Order: sequence, then structure tokens, then C-alpha cells
Amino acid sequence: MSRFLSPKYAKLEAYTPGEQPRDKQYIKLNTNESPYPPSPQVLDALTRKDVEDLRLYSDPEGAALREKLAKLYGVEPGNVFLSNGSDDILNFAFMAFANDGAVFPGLTYSFYPVFADLHGVAYDTVPLKEDFSVDVDGMKGTGKFTVLANPNAPTGLALPLENVEEIIASNPDQVVVIDEAYVDFGAESAASLVDKYENLLVVMTYSKSRSMAGARLGFGLASRPIIQDLEKIKYSTNPYNVNRLTLKLGEAAVDSDEYFRENARKIMDTREKTAAALKELGFTMPDSKTNFLFVKREGLDGGVLYQKLKDRGVLIRHFSDPRIAQYNRVTIGTPEEMAAFLEGVKEIMKEEGLA
Amino acid sequence: MSRFLSPKYAKLEAYTPGEQPRDKQYIKLNTNESPYPPSPQVLDALTRKDVEDLRLYSDPEGAALREKLAKLYGVEPGNVFLSNGSDDILNFAFMAFANDGAVFPGLTYSFYPVFADLHGVAYDTVPLKEDFSVDVDGMKGTGKFTVLANPNAPTGLALPLENVEEIIASNPDQVVVIDEAYVDFGAESAASLVDKYENLLVVMTYSKSRSMAGARLGFGLASRPIIQDLEKIKYSTNPYNVNRLTLKLGEAAVDSDEYFRENARKIMDTREKTAAALKELGFTMPDSKTNFLFVKREGLDGGVLYQKLKDRGVLIRHFSDPRIAQYNRVTIGTPEEMAAFLEGVKEIMKEEGLA
Repeated sequence: MSRFLSPKYAKLEAYTPGEQPRDKQYIKLNTNESPYPPSPQVLDALTRKDVEDLRLYSDPEGAALREKLAKLYGVEPGNVFLSNGSDDILNFAFMAFANDGAVFPGLTYSFYPVFADLHGVAYDTVPLKEDFSVDVDGMKGTGKFTVLANPNAPTGLALPLENVEEIIASNPDQVVVIDEAYVDFGAESAASLVDKYENLLVVMTYSKSRSMAGARLGFGLASRPIIQDLEKIKYSTNPYNVNRLTLKLGEAAVDSDEYFRENARKIMDTREKTAAALKELGFTMPDSKTNFLFVKREGLDGGVLYQKLKDRGVLIRHFSDPRIAQYNRVTIGTPEEMAAFLEGVKEIMKEEGLA
Repeated sequence: MSRFLSPKYAKLEAYTPGEQPRDKQYIKLNTNESPYPPSPQVLDALTRKDVEDLRLYSDPEGAALREKLAKLYGVEPGNVFLSNGSDDILNFAFMAFANDGAVFPGLTYSFYPVFADLHGVAYDTVPLKEDFSVDVDGMKGTGKFTVLANPNAPTGLALPLENVEEIIASNPDQVVVIDEAYVDFGAESAASLVDKYENLLVVMTYSKSRSMAGARLGFGLASRPIIQDLEKIKYSTNPYNVNRLTLKLGEAAVDSDEYFRENARKIMDTREKTAAALKELGFTMPDSKTNFLFVKREGLDGGVLYQKLKDRGVLIRHFSDPRIAQYNRVTIGTPEEMAAFLEGVKEIMKEEGLA
């Protein structure tokens, strides 16, 4: 920290992204990336002319992509907000709408409290229930800006749309964000409620089911006034923050939506098989509707499993939060990657005298 | 505006980006883009594998690119901060360092007051001198976060490095930002002072001389503690905000630095020829060290010239600010584009009875 930094950030603890190690090639099951490349249409989308045209600014409105996304989700282009990944929208939403404070579940995406602290927003958390599910009643009538990841991370559990709607409907004077980063892996989207609730902001990303984490593209779906507020913030920080190539690739991805849905089905299938294999080894886990599993093995320390897998070239995500230090979050890779992961787990269990 | 927006933004006026019209093909001299494509190395840099790898997050540290930029500017990688265009850094700097308020010239990049208003930063402006040059004495010892665009926009005038250093040295307890978006077109960079002044932040962009406005890449050069503060803000908003393809293209651009320097020389040459031709037509303008001219013709209304050129398919930038409403900002394009622009100006002058 420099002596020039505003004292209001003195206690701010930044978000810790998952490891992106460069020391060797890992089987990377730690940041919930897709194991599959983007669709052939995306792979073929870029021409030399597109790179030449980088001399020109991108369309700050992203009009062509907004139109395609609007059609896909059954809304108008004016209900779509484009951003540099979904973190960008979440950040703007905390800036714009959390004037009365914020509420989110006690265990969820660990970036929410960082956004809150960054912008000086006081927040309450609603503890998860014993089974890690979100306490729906606790999230109702908060009177504050309310954020729900559905499915939730790192648990992987999803709420039925009916419960999500109860939370939205019970907070009519506050924006309710439904963060659907993982929705394509088996949960129900609240996108269908955008026309019904003025206070709803659905946040989605290309980083997971659309295999484009490195392209930086997210989008929000909401009533027009909410979109206009987000645009005001965007045009006051960085109007062109989605680059030209990403806009074009994003369009090609919408055009090949079925490819990505098929990928999501493959990943869900691999998830179920991996979950079954882990359960046979004595692991327990919540019922995941995401592209990851949140797993624990009685008698096997989470940190030890993480480190020993890393030594074997398999990277999973371990959290230092003591409430979940016994757990690990394991991204679903290809069947081959998951076989290697399971092989490693078995070896480690032997070493630890558990099998 | 929605009824949910925090009242602190009620009066915020967002930045207005230059027009990016889609109604027809224009000769686009309105947003200071380069008329030349990126270097052949950049055009050849992307492979199908790179697009496949978009499934993975980008390196949030941008280690490879930082190393190359550090070498180019004679600093250490730890003195380099990468961002999504230079607006991104400016925004972070206003957040991080303007706790005691901000100071910038009275006429400069119109985004500075927007950043200040967004973050609730009170600011003073130092009026330009009669000849549009920056009042160096007025910028000294401000006791506040101080921002200087050098060369300045929209005037195009540059201060000698000696004056820039005086401003930095006279504000030892505040960060001084030197925004060098246009420095490659004939001005002296303060990059050489980074090792000498702990409070200096030099901001640069790939959008102008490096022909990559649409790729969204900017960088800052500063003492390590300042870079660490910027990283703290970045990791609390959007850690991966530079996408994978842009990082790779940015590296290829550093590797072909000479190509871009040659482009800058061509643009400076076209600028001088355009300036001479305009002077013959009775235009006046400050001495530009940028890729644009800030021009006025006695008896020819700035708004009229803008509109009549637009009707002819030539887009230049007109500002509504009454202090400069008689001026227009004209980006330097190719010699052919400038010939078409001058042809249009001559026709319009005839129509207006000025020739």
C-alpha cells in the first residue's frame, strides 16, 4: 500500500482469484472453466480483417450482440446490458443499488463482500441451513439490495424458481440480483421473470457453459430503468469495456447455442458419474446443479487432499474459510480428466490409510 | 433512471463517447483512431488454438506482457499495471488517490470530471492560458490528486518534460497522473521519471499510436506501491479484465514497436501537411503534438462545419462546451482521407461565402 491510498481502502481485502499456475501443465479443475473449446462457429468467426479493424473502437452499445441475446432470452435489446464478464455487472450493481446496504447468503461467491467493502456498503449475511441450502425465508423482505447466486457457489445447490420468485417479489423496493453464472448446468433461470419484476436483475456469463472465460463477456437482463442505471455507471467508468473480437465471438456463440447446451449436458453427465464414484469412496456433497462438486471425505483433511492432488498435477480449489476448510471444490472436466482426478484421490486415500 | 438508483448518482452526467454511426460508411476523423491497421506481427498473432483456449481465464497478472512493456520503457515488471484501456486506470486512480480532492486543467479530457463526480471527488480546475497552453504554475503545489494530459486534449498542445517534472516535484504528497494517450505523436514521455518520483503515475494506451482501440488495452507506469494500490482496486472489481486475445496481441505489438513508430511518423507528417493546408484556408489552431488538430475558422461556425462535413460523409468531433463551440477536433487519417476532408472544407467555405 502506498502512502497515497485513500484511507477508506486501508482494510479492503481484494478477491483472490483461483490459481493460474505457469510452473507446469496441470489438470485444471480449480476455476470452473469448461473443459471443451467454444463452438466451431466461434472458432471460425475471426478473420484477419477483424484484427485489422481493431484500430477502431468497439461499439459501446454492442447493438448486434444485444439483439441476439434479447431474442435468445425472450426480452427486448433494451433489457440487455453487456459487460466485461459478470463481475463487472456485479460491481456496478453494488455501486448503483446498494445505498441502503446489502444482503446475501452467509456462504456464497466470495466476491460479494469484496464489492461491498470496496464501495463502503454495509451488509448482512443470511446463514445457510444445515444442509447448505439457502434460507429462503431469511432472504425475503430484506429491505436491502439483495444478491442470490442461483445455483449457489461453492455449494452447487440450486433453489427452485418458485423460491427465487418469492425472494424477488418480497423485496419490491430493492434490486434483487440473481447471479446465474452456473444456471445452464441444471437449474431454472429467472430470465423469464424480467418482464414481471421491475426490481429483478439477472446476471449471466460466457465464462462457464459458453467456454469463453478468457474472452471476458457477461450480460445482465433487467427492466429498462435498471439497464439505464447500469449504462450510466458504465459510461462514467469505461464505455468501451467489451472489445471488438469478443463482441463478434459472443454473437457466434449465440448462433451456435445448441452446441453449448450439448456441452452442458455432457458436463452434467460427467458430474453425475464423478459424484457417484466419489460417494463410493465415502465422500459427501450437496446435490450440484453446476459444473463443479463441493466435496468432503470424513477423515481426509481438505487442505491435504488439495496439496497432494496438486503434487500429482491435479489442481482443485481449496478455501481457507474455516467453515468449509474440510471441503474442496472440484470443477467437472472431461471424463478423462475426472478419471485422473479419481485415480489421484484413490492413491491419496491409500496413503492416508483410508482405503 | 430507476427508482432504485442511489441518490448520489442523481446528478451524474456520464461521458459521451464520440459517435460510432452505423447508418453509412464515413471517413471517420472523430475519435482519434489510427487510420493504419496494427502491425503484420499483430495481424498474424492469433491462431485457432488461441480461440480454443478462450475457455480458460486470462492471466490476471498479464505477466508476459508486463515483462515486455517493462523492457520497452526501462522499468521493472512490478512498475507496470495493465488495464482495459487507459480509462480503466484513470477511473481506478480517481478512486484510489483523490481522497483530498482533484485538480486538472480547465479544458482537458472531458472524462476527468465524470470520474470525479462518479466517486464524489471535489475538484478544482486550472484555466488554460489565452493560447490554450496549460498553466504550469497553476498546476504546481496543488495539495491534491493532480491530473495532466500531456499532450492535452482537445487542444493537442504538449508541455516540455521540464514543466511536467516541475508539476510532479511540486506535489510530493499527492499522486500526479500524466495521461500520455497521445505522447507518441511528438511529445516527451515522463516514463523516464518513474524511478525518480514515487508519486508519479504515467498512463498510456494502445488505442492511438498502436492502432488497437478496439482491443481495449492500456497500461500504467509507476512506483511499486502505486501499482500495488491499483492492483488492489482491480482485484476488488474485475481481476481478469484484459482478455486473452488482447494480451497476446499486446505482446506482438511490443515486438513490432518500430512499425508503430513509423506509423506515428507518417501521421505526424500528414498532420503537418493538413495543418499547412488549413492555415492557407484561414484556419487557426494550436501546435498539435497529437494525432488530431483543434481547428477554427473565423466566420465559419464550428457546428455548421461539423454538420455539413457529416452530410458529405466526413465525421469530425464537435463539442457542445460553449468555450470551444467554434472549434472542431479533426483526427489525422490517411493522406487520402485528409484530402477528402480538405475538399469538403473548401466546398463548405464556398457555400458559406468564405472563398
